[in-house]
Amino acid sequence: MPLVHVTDPADPRVAPYLDIRDRDLAGHGGFFVAEGEVVVRQLVTASRFRPHSLLLAEKRVAALTDVIAALPASVPVFVAAQAVMDRIVGFPIHRGILGLGLRGAAPLAADLIAAAPPVIVCAAGIANHDNIGGIFRNAAAFGAGAVLIDGASCDPLYRKAIRVSVGAALRVPFARVESVAAMLDLLEAADYRVVGLSPAGSLPLARLVPPPRVALLLGSEGPGLPADVLARTMAVRIDMSGGFDSLNVATTSGIALYHLTRAGV
Amino acid sequence: MPLVHVTDPADPRVAPYLDIRDRDLAGHGGFFVAEGEVVVRQLVTASRFRPHSLLLAEKRVAALTDVIAALPASVPVFVAAQAVMDRIVGFPIHRGILGLGLRGAAPLAADLIAAAPPVIVCAAGIANHDNIGGIFRNAAAFGAGAVLIDGASCDPLYRKAIRVSVGAALRVPFARVESVAAMLDLLEAADYRVVGLSPAGSLPLARLVPPPRVALLLGSEGPGLPADVLARTMAVRIDMSGGFDSLNVATTSGIALYHLTRAGV
Repeated sequence: MPLVHVTDPADPRVAPYLDIRDRDLAGHGGFFVAEGEVVVRQLVTASRFRPHSLLLAEKRVAALTDVIAALPASVPVFVAAQAVMDRIVGFPIHRGILGLGLRGAAPLAADLIAAAPPVIVCAAGIANHDNIGGIFRNAAAFGAGAVLIDGASCDPLYRKAIRVSVGAALRVPFARVESVAAMLDLLEAADYRVVGLSPAGSLPLARLVPPPRVALLLGSEGPGLPADVLARTMAVRIDMSGGFDSLNVATTSGIALYHLTRAGV
Repeated sequence: MPLVHVTDPADPRVAPYLDIRDRDLAGHGGFFVAEGEVVVRQLVTASRFRPHSLLLAEKRVAALTDVIAALPASVPVFVAAQAVMDRIVGFPIHRGILGLGLRGAAPLAADLIAAAPPVIVCAAGIANHDNIGGIFRNAAAFGAGAVLIDGASCDPLYRKAIRVSVGAALRVPFARVESVAAMLDLLEAADYRVVGLSPAGSLPLARLVPPPRVALLLGSEGPGLPADVLARTMAVRIDMSGGFDSLNVATTSGIALYHLTRAGV
């Protein structure tokens, strides 16, 4: 499909991009927003989602020639002058590179588990977009096959979460299970060992022999995993230096995934 | 010292808090800004810096009684109604908890190295405040004794860096050495083995036997460490899953520090 040049911010064809920050916060119907070259490239070339369209500032088109060529013919690429693009999206968007993806039907947690990936990452109450994005980035980096999130965790397809994940949220399949208890039921039924990360864990991570099918359960930084949840897991701690037992939860996921996938190397 | 109640935003005693965002960006003279309960608590109780003063919204005073009691008598605690505090600082500051610290004289890199901590963290070209804050948080968590930063790295005492570090930037001593080459000269002269993290490293981290005196050198996420710098280090990589060799630099520091300090546990 040739580029579609847009000169009128009110052009109905770019209506899904109008005031995109507010729309994104509201869940944005069936879309999610990919922002910046790295993420839009992932959306088009390495994502499990179908792109709906791109919206590019004129000056960015040349850098994305290969991405545009890789798009199915049915996917429009809207091109606008920077000032027009700013008016469409409702703020000065210096990066000048946006895409919309179609959420489609979410996979079922049971199906992701049935595929039996060696490592699954589970997020309980991760309500911060930086942290959920960082967890997906690490999941992709260390080859976790799926991510399960509970009802209290935030949307991995929120624009900022995708950006922080460097696009990994578009690659690693995920499913939401409302309660952590139900998540553990599913994992136990499929013979996964659930490793719960907690400063209160009885086993130091460095001594954990990675189980063949392991689910890594991460709680939020403040309260951490509830005691009743932790009691159903192999509770593991990361030993730290005296007086400062505080790791970011995304960093924690990186350390634990490193240990689980590389310890025997 | 009793609480000092401030009712006039133009009160000269709170002048250092005026429009604090802009001042912070400008380096803020001899001060740095601590924001929020966790960080202000660290400033007062576990910091290597002297506090200059606190500025609290009235509703926050009760939660900080112990912190106020721990302050030297010479340090004023200004208290203002939320609306007055908002006008002083120039934006709605919901947390209502600020402190100023005195930068004082920076330690010399040579002195930090001469103290011979087992682990030193070195940052080259880390220009992002989230990343420098995350690196300090991990340095504190795993007991690194010092951080060295090059001229291209950002200020660890910038408000956001301190916040992301959860106050660790106020605890772990650091010094700036303009060039990475000069930094390596100092470390080599003191018999430190410098481990350079790079996807191009020849040794997988999991196979690195932690040297007794080790300096962990981290470069920026995009370009990474320059080849001439890397050639002077023991170049180590973190193996990742195919097709996604991308870790955040703060997460990288956490994984490497975990390995260096816990591998033998």
